[in-house]
Amino acid sequence: MVQYSIQLDTAFAALSDATRRGILERLGRGDASISDLATNFEMTLTGIKKHVQVLEDAGLVTTEKVGRVRTCKLGPRRLEDEAAWITKYRQMLEARLDSLGEFLARTKGDES
Amino acid sequence: MVQYSIQLDTAFAALSDATRRGILERLGRGDASISDLATNFEMTLTGIKKHVQVLEDAGLVTTEKVGRVRTCKLGPRRLEDEAAWITKYRQMLEARLDSLGEFLARTKGDES
Repeated sequence: MVQYSIQLDTAFAALSDATRRGILERLGRGDASISDLATNFEMTLTGIKKHVQVLEDAGLVTTEKVGRVRTCKLGPRRLEDEAAWITKYRQMLEARLDSLGEFLARTKGDES
Repeated sequence: MVQYSIQLDTAFAALSDATRRGILERLGRGDASISDLATNFEMTLTGIKKHVQVLEDAGLVTTEKVGRVRTCKLGPRRLEDEAAWITKYRQMLEARLDSLGEFLARTKGDES
């Protein structure tokens, strides 16, 4: 449970930056080297490496160095738990709004 | 677009803490005062206030002070954009995995 919670913490923190979300979207279209990403996002290699490290720590990206080139790819985690948390939360909200709506409709019925 | 991106940044950052996710789940079951939340989460009033402020800045919680009691409720934002971003990302991933699977199946076919 604690492990699950820490995973959600690090994944949501990783998603809280537009460049990091952009890197995930880019890697969704195909693997890329650190230099490819630096060119795509008009950032320094150091800047991109920091973002990739955060994504790697969250388990959303893996990297492999062959010769002088470090290639980034998605995985092993795929935001399943994060999607599940948000879906569950929104279902709970909708259920609550429905019951509030029914309560208001009933109250209005009593008045007439 | 920039505004949308900042909203995602602040909402995902707000979700990157187990206590804040807990507060959202608690408020999903009903409005609560700061003191209620402090009791529920065994935290100081100051600690809870800081978390509620982060949720308020992200538009996920609103608070109203009547007399000496500050009541917290959900809204106005309801994680629609965050849910949509994650759903779109996961659809893209699945499409990519499908095409990789087809490629591997074709390659295997060529070998036989």
